[in-house]
Parts: sequence; C-alpha cells; structure tokens
Amino acid sequence: MLHAADPFLLQLLVIFLWAKIFGELFERLSLPAVLGEILAGITLGPYATALVHPSGEIEAIGQIGAIFLLFSVGLETHPSELIGVGRSSLRVALLGVLVPFVFGFGYLMLWHYPAHEAIFVGAAMVATSVGISARVMGDLHVLHTRAAKIILAAAVFDDVLGMVLLALVAGLASTTGIQWLQLSLLFAEAVAFTVFMIFFAPRVVRRMRPPLVLALAICLGLSVAAQKIGMAAIIGAFFAGLAFADHAPEWNLQSRVAGITQFLSPFFFFVMGARLNLSVINWEVARVAIVISVLAILTKVVGCGVPVLHEGWRTAMKVAVGMVPRGEVGLIVALVGLNMRVITDQSYAVVIFMTGATTVFAPLILRMLFRQYPDTLPEVHMAPVQPEPAA
Amino acid sequence: MLHAADPFLLQLLVIFLWAKIFGELFERLSLPAVLGEILAGITLGPYATALVHPSGEIEAIGQIGAIFLLFSVGLETHPSELIGVGRSSLRVALLGVLVPFVFGFGYLMLWHYPAHEAIFVGAAMVATSVGISARVMGDLHVLHTRAAKIILAAAVFDDVLGMVLLALVAGLASTTGIQWLQLSLLFAEAVAFTVFMIFFAPRVVRRMRPPLVLALAICLGLSVAAQKIGMAAIIGAFFAGLAFADHAPEWNLQSRVAGITQFLSPFFFFVMGARLNLSVINWEVARVAIVISVLAILTKVVGCGVPVLHEGWRTAMKVAVGMVPRGEVGLIVALVGLNMRVITDQSYAVVIFMTGATTVFAPLILRMLFRQYPDTLPEVHMAPVQPEPAA
Repeated sequence: MLHAADPFLLQLLVIFLWAKIFGELFERLSLPAVLGEILAGITLGPYATALVHPSGEIEAIGQIGAIFLLFSVGLETHPSELIGVGRSSLRVALLGVLVPFVFGFGYLMLWHYPAHEAIFVGAAMVATSVGISARVMGDLHVLHTRAAKIILAAAVFDDVLGMVLLALVAGLASTTGIQWLQLSLLFAEAVAFTVFMIFFAPRVVRRMRPPLVLALAICLGLSVAAQKIGMAAIIGAFFAGLAFADHAPEWNLQSRVAGITQFLSPFFFFVMGARLNLSVINWEVARVAIVISVLAILTKVVGCGVPVLHEGWRTAMKVAVGMVPRGEVGLIVALVGLNMRVITDQSYAVVIFMTGATTVFAPLILRMLFRQYPDTLPEVHMAPVQPEPAA
Repeated sequence: MLHAADPFLLQLLVIFLWAKIFGELFERLSLPAVLGEILAGITLGPYATALVHPSGEIEAIGQIGAIFLLFSVGLETHPSELIGVGRSSLRVALLGVLVPFVFGFGYLMLWHYPAHEAIFVGAAMVATSVGISARVMGDLHVLHTRAAKIILAAAVFDDVLGMVLLALVAGLASTTGIQWLQLSLLFAEAVAFTVFMIFFAPRVVRRMRPPLVLALAICLGLSVAAQKIGMAAIIGAFFAGLAFADHAPEWNLQSRVAGITQFLSPFFFFVMGARLNLSVINWEVARVAIVISVLAILTKVVGCGVPVLHEGWRTAMKVAVGMVPRGEVGLIVALVGLNMRVITDQSYAVVIFMTGATTVFAPLILRMLFRQYPDTLPEVHMAPVQPEPAA
C-alpha cells in the first residue's frame, strides 16, 4: 500500500519532464518553447499515444499556471503604457472581432449551412486567447515593446467583446431571445471593472506596499472577480499584475512570482495540447476545417493588422499574428452551440481543428517576427534597429 | 454558464485568504503562523462549520506545497552539517520510535486490549511528521541551529524506521506473517537511497549548475523515488534540497523556490486541519484518547530528548518537542489496522485525536523554546547567548 508512488505525483513528474524536454528541444531548434510544451501534450495525450491522461488535479494546476503567467506579464506592463496604446488596441480588438465573425459566418452561409450554425461557428472564431502570445513574448523578453503593449491591451478589449458576443449569440439561439437589459448590465460591469483596474487600482495599491502573500491573494481575488463578471480569469490576473507593475521591481515581486510561473505554466500548455482532439476530423469535414482555419488566421491578421498599419508594418504584423491564437472561449462558444443543438458534431470538430491550427501557427510566426525585427521603439520614430542579445 | 466563478478557483481563493488571515492573526498573538493555518482548516473544514470541503484538486496542491516546503528546508541544510549530527540524530530517531511504541502498546495491554490492537495503536504513535516543525523553524529563521539539524536528520531516520515498523506490524497481523526477505530488501533500499542522497548526490549535482526547471524536476523525481521505496515523498524532496544546498545561494535557487513554497504550503496545512475529525471522540473514548495523546507527547519528548541531553538541555528540549508532531503515517498505520479489522473504530478515533493533539501542541512549544533560547551554538561550547532580532 505504501510502496506505490501516488499516481498524481507521478503524473506531475512525467508531465513536467516531458513538457520541459520538448520545450528545450524546440528552443534548440529555434522554435518557441511553448509550442514544444503544447506538442508534448498533443503527442502524449489521450488523443494520440494516450500515455498520459491529465487528471482533474493536473488541469487545476494548469489553470493556476495560466493565472500566474498573466499575473507575471501584468507585472511587466505599466498601466500608463497600456493607456497610451488604448485607441490603437481598441481598434485592433474591434476589427479583430468583426472581420473573423463576418467571414466565418459568410463562408458557411455561402455553403448553405443553417444561419444559427453559421453564427455560432463565426462567434467561435472571434476570441483571442492571449496566453500563448504572452508566453512567447515573455520568453523573448519583448514585453516592453509597443507591439506587445498593443496585443495585451487589445486582448483585454477582445475579452469584453467576446463575452458580449457569446451572450448575443446564445440569446439569438435560445427561446427567450436576447436579454438586452441583462446584456447591457454585463457590458457595463465589464467596462467599469476594466476602467477601475487600469486607472484607479494602481493608485490604491501604491499605498499598500503589499507582501508577496497579499499580492498573491489579490491576484486570485481578481481572477475570481473577473470570472464572476463573465470575463476570463486570466484577464483578472493580468489586471492584478498591472496594478502592482509600477512598484514590482522595488518590492521584488517579479522574481518571486517568476518561480511559481515557471513551475506551474508548463502544465497549462501541456493540458491545452492534451485536449486537442485532432482525430475528430475525417475527410468529409477536412475541407471545411482547413478553410475555416485559414480564414481564422487570415481574418485576424487583417482585422488586427490594418488598424495599426500606421505604426509601421513590423509592429502591425506582430500585433496581427499575436492576436491569432484562439483557445478556451472559442471552444466554449462551440460547446454552448452543441449543447443547444444549434451546431452539429462536425462543426464542433471544425472549431477544435481551428483552435489547434491557430495554436500551432501563431507562436511559430510570432517568435520569428520578434527575432527578425527586434525593434524596441515604434518605427514611426525612425529609431535605429537595435539587435537584442541572444537569450 | 460563463458567469459563475469556477468552484475550484473560488475555493483556492477562500482557503488561501483564510489560511493567511489566521496565520497573520496568530503571528500577531506571538503564536506560530502554521498553527493558524491548521486551525483555519479545522474551523472552516467539513468537521466543524463545514464552510469549505477541500476538493481533490486542493489536496493535490497541498501535497505539492509540502514537497516544496521540505525542498526549501533542504536547500538551507548543508549535507556536511547533517552528517555531523548523524550519531546524535540516529539515537534520537531510534529511542523516539521505541519509547512511544513500548508505552502505547503497554498502556493498552494493561487495559486488556487485544495484543494486535495494542501493537497497531503503538505503531501509529511512532512516526514523526516533520513538516510542521520544519515550517516553524523556517519561519523563525533557525534552520541553521544545531537543534534544527538534529531534528531534520532524525526525521529522515524516523521515516525509514517508521516504514519498517509499518511493514512489521502489517506482517504480524496478516495471515502470511512477516515477509523477512522483502522487509530486509525494503530496509536496504531505503538505507542505500539515504546514504546516496546525503553522501554522493551533492557531488553529482555540483557539476551540473542546474537551471531552476531542472532543479524542480529533480525535486519531483526524488519525491516519486522516495515513495516508490516506501518512504515519504517529502523526505525525497528534502534530499533534493540537500543535494543543491551547497550551491543554492550562488545559483539563486532559494528565493525562487521560496515564492512557490509561500504560495502552495498554506494549502497543505489547511487540508491537514480540515482532515482532523475531532468529533469522532465521545465521552467513552475520551479518557483513552487523552491518555494516549499525553503519552504520545511525553514519550517522544523523553525518547528524543534524553539521547541529546549532553548537548545541553535547551537543545535537547528543542529536539524533543520538534519530534512530537505526528501526521499522515500514524493515520495510515491506523487505517491499515482498521482495514485489516485489527483495530476498532474507537481506536482509530483515538489515533486521529492523538494526531491532532500533537499537531497543536508541538508548534506552540517549539516556537516558544526557539524564541526564549535563541542560542545558535550548542551550549557545550559555552557561547554567549545572542538574542536574535525580532522577525
């Protein structure tokens, strides 16, 4: 009885080791480590070799990992800089939501899918999942660049818009219709929360000089608060980091949170990979899946790139690619549609495939762009390009 | 659907907050913070107000917390110092196992309990659970003292002896009898593992200069390895810390692991408290429960104090009290007995009560002793007592 290793602890070890080995391997091949961690999950996970079935405990640890990842990213992001890119990133988020939705919806309508199904698949193509891009930019130490700020700010707006869109399409498809009053309240709550966290929270925090445990408690508290409002928990964690950012170096918060993030976040990406059931795709749906995936990538690139073209095409490309990854929210939208019997199993599979395609595509190209064009200032200033030291 | 906070995340927040609030409160009252965290678990847990039922995910996080706690403690313990207290701590562990067993067994025999039941209750009184003492000493920054080294080294021996004793009593009570060959193999494995980890592993590690992730992987790997051999996972984690200790400051390991420990370990102590079902005690078994608890404390104090009396009574008292807490292993022994129908529900309740009593007693007195007598050198050297700065 005592002499069998606890299966949880064994799984923890195996996942951590494989994620890190794949990550290191990818790093050596000049590929993003996060993609290695995701592929470790895909290859060892239940839908490929089935060597590891991540337990509920592991998924929970991955969830905390994502929260601390965005908390760490927030700690390196000064609210004032975020406010500085406010207009640009609002445009990026708006067009980045509209363009994918219109094209996804339009494509399925063209092929005579039911309107409700086309709406749900279109909505599932909308929400950016910022975790992957945040990790890639953190690994490359480029969170201070203008492109990174725009991506992070746009991800916040994108989350609010995605939430509203989900409420809209769920209302459309339900018997009760859209609850406009409830929807407006939700929107107002999310906007008020965001405004408070970006403009006022940093001032509140300044007087506290919190010890690590209080900072951690606030991070968890804001994650829960964000969820209560209908936003993603990781956006709440990002806000928490933001609130502490101005004083993080002085209070030595970053290095102490970095240890937690480095330990926990690989579980998030491994679980993300392990959940990707690419075997749902058969030849019949492959065509739609591939077209929708290509559309999902192109429409985000265009929708998010065009609004910031005036910042120079390098920044625009980085922002565009950084907004490509889709994740949980897209899958949730599709699942809601599936549960409401508005979309078919095939369309659900298409969404899963699209999530996987954007997840693999974005970190590859984003890393390439940041390494190729490591300018730290916006190009409109015509600053000389400073090559960064190799990590 | 989206607008309810994930119950896991909510529980994570509530437990972290309450554990830390109780801990801070206790700290202000000059009581050990760890006791506050345990009491938070007792009072909010399922057997008191039932406000929080820690989920499997939370228990898993607590388990990782205990592993990182002992890893942190190992990082501050140099193998050479541990070898220096080897003889003393071996005597402490041996008598600390024998005396409680003999008295626990004897007391129940005196009251005409069946011999097998007396053996199991005696065995359940044996194993020290070093987590609580390690935490108290870490909080007080006294891990460098001779008493702390003796406690940690004795806890390692105690773990090996406890494992052997459990195999012995389980064999005694089973139909197959004691499997001497298997038992000798187990013992040899545990001794070889311990010797390798203390004498050779630090030399192996010295050449590696491992990054944080490799150190974390080794910590998890050795925790699993220890479990495979039949030892506690936390002892494996302690060995891992030990192996890195000589170079931990240079490689900046401590501060980065400290963040993880500070975040995760409160969950361990909260869960420990939440598991303490003190309501199992009725008036009928209360007398036995109280006597066994007092015996459990006194016999450890005598068994562990006497062998180091030559180091001065202050060190002896600290070592004695530091070895008092019982935990998981005692409960496992009792559970094995319950499952083999060798002990009754009442005796199982007695063991639970005893675990709770030692868990509450030890940190209180241990903290008092270390604050009252903060000598950093053994008294045999007649060094002047240096008062430590208040934390």
